[in-house]
Amino acid sequence: MIDRMSTQPISLDDAFARFTDIWSPRIVATINDYDVRLARFAGEHVWHVHENTDEFFLVVDGEIDIALREDGDERVVTVPRGAVFVVPRGTFHKPSAKDGALVLLVEPSGTLTVGDTHDEVPDHVDVTTGHAL
Amino acid sequence: MIDRMSTQPISLDDAFARFTDIWSPRIVATINDYDVRLARFAGEHVWHVHENTDEFFLVVDGEIDIALREDGDERVVTVPRGAVFVVPRGTFHKPSAKDGALVLLVEPSGTLTVGDTHDEVPDHVDVTTGHAL
Repeated sequence: MIDRMSTQPISLDDAFARFTDIWSPRIVATINDYDVRLARFAGEHVWHVHENTDEFFLVVDGEIDIALREDGDERVVTVPRGAVFVVPRGTFHKPSAKDGALVLLVEPSGTLTVGDTHDEVPDHVDVTTGHAL
Repeated sequence: MIDRMSTQPISLDDAFARFTDIWSPRIVATINDYDVRLARFAGEHVWHVHENTDEFFLVVDGEIDIALREDGDERVVTVPRGAVFVVPRGTFHKPSAKDGALVLLVEPSGTLTVGDTHDEVPDHVDVTTGHAL
């Protein structure tokens, strides 16, 4: 799979069509020791933090909200289709997508979807470092 | 600029509207020690190789070709709008876009546009590690 990923282009539409699970990222490409992951967002994820890595979001379709805890305050960033956002390392955050969204993420391989510390994980959130497409 | 980049979402349309130079990437976000760069492709780049890093391409608009030298052979991969491709480290390649294209790239910060070894660089190709947006 890795070989194929690195030798042929992959349409994001085709890649998203290969899975329907929400909050369960697929690895569409690797860049050295980083993953490019595709995820379907729908409803709410879980508050969590990645202590040692930033996390990049590009909204491919739909719109997402990312709640952030910063300096004791909470704010919500809305990221529309075609926009990018980086959650800095060490920042507690909770992504959500009221009406669903398709999202491309970039982060180091091995990064867990629920981070290093998190609230209780609901059943609809997959605890994973990403699945093969 | 870095602070702003990490605290507000950025629309790719807005970001591309901020510059017109071809083959002159702008850094739209950073992920740890990686850059997310935006570039306008038009015509031909130059044959070059990144010995120590893979290079990720997502075609945001238009279509690109990436010529690759592999095992003594040459092939051209066409990457249409909405598709991704990774040029593996150590592979000589020459991107081009006959009718122009908008491209998002991910690669380690400091990666030079013309790689470690390259053919003679034409005037229309910017030798850079990426500019601020």
